[in-house]
Amino acid sequence: MTLSPLFKPDPALDLVLERFIEVPPELVWEAWTKPEHISQWFTPKPWIVAECEIDLRPGGIFRTLMQSPDGNESNDLRGCYLEIVPNQRLVWTDALLAGFRPSENPFITAIITMEAEGDGTRYCSMARHRDESVRKQHEEMGFYDGWGTVSEQLAAYVKTLPATSR
Amino acid sequence: MTLSPLFKPDPALDLVLERFIEVPPELVWEAWTKPEHISQWFTPKPWIVAECEIDLRPGGIFRTLMQSPDGNESNDLRGCYLEIVPNQRLVWTDALLAGFRPSENPFITAIITMEAEGDGTRYCSMARHRDESVRKQHEEMGFYDGWGTVSEQLAAYVKTLPATSR
Repeated sequence: MTLSPLFKPDPALDLVLERFIEVPPELVWEAWTKPEHISQWFTPKPWIVAECEIDLRPGGIFRTLMQSPDGNESNDLRGCYLEIVPNQRLVWTDALLAGFRPSENPFITAIITMEAEGDGTRYCSMARHRDESVRKQHEEMGFYDGWGTVSEQLAAYVKTLPATSR
Repeated sequence: MTLSPLFKPDPALDLVLERFIEVPPELVWEAWTKPEHISQWFTPKPWIVAECEIDLRPGGIFRTLMQSPDGNESNDLRGCYLEIVPNQRLVWTDALLAGFRPSENPFITAIITMEAEGDGTRYCSMARHRDESVRKQHEEMGFYDGWGTVSEQLAAYVKTLPATSR
């Protein structure tokens, strides 16, 4: 995909995960934009997505509450959407909340791109950070393992969707 | 103007300045979106806008370098555009830089709205903050005085534009 230079990854500041998914972009888009789908793949199992809010427009909320199996640990991700280009690009950040309000704890902007490739999708997820130390921190927190597991779950989940959704 | 609830001001967190400007919205929009115009009104005189960069698309840079008359003091505002609805709404933030990258020093999101009223424009500029303490800090830094002066300069400047621009 020809990305605008604005969205080209900077190796010093960004972390990128790319893979092929064996369903068309429309279905990957669907899985990314409805709470009932997000809850099936968005956090590495056995953690669960206990709550998910999606208001799919620029400035609209994107929130997922992830919980450990025993419910003792949780991660409440709050952010908003920045760009919505159906079946092509979805951008959200936790640096802004609903209505574009600056947040308390900015960490990443996520740029998700998908492009048709044969019968499937070339899928790319990028985490953008403010400086090298935050990128490094994210890498050490297990970006490749975590986002890798989650994209594996996504790729497996979209294949199980009923034919009516495909 | 009927603003989406997402963009309704929250008195505890937002600061708002509203006024009538005696030219149509198209001209106010013009003044907000071209560097050669920004440099004429965007900082309270005798400070000057020494540099201005505008890349008018979501994720595109908005930067102004403001300087004191002797050049000893400056304020380098760096951010990006979030929403661009010509002649109606312009949203930018310093919480994100070009390409939506989280910034080092997030402070505000600015939501600028304009609506035709008679022969002129009902103009509203809102500064959105992450919490009450930042709103209070901004108010004490002189929001009403600063943004008031600047909107006065804007209102005066747009009336001097040559007929070809109007």
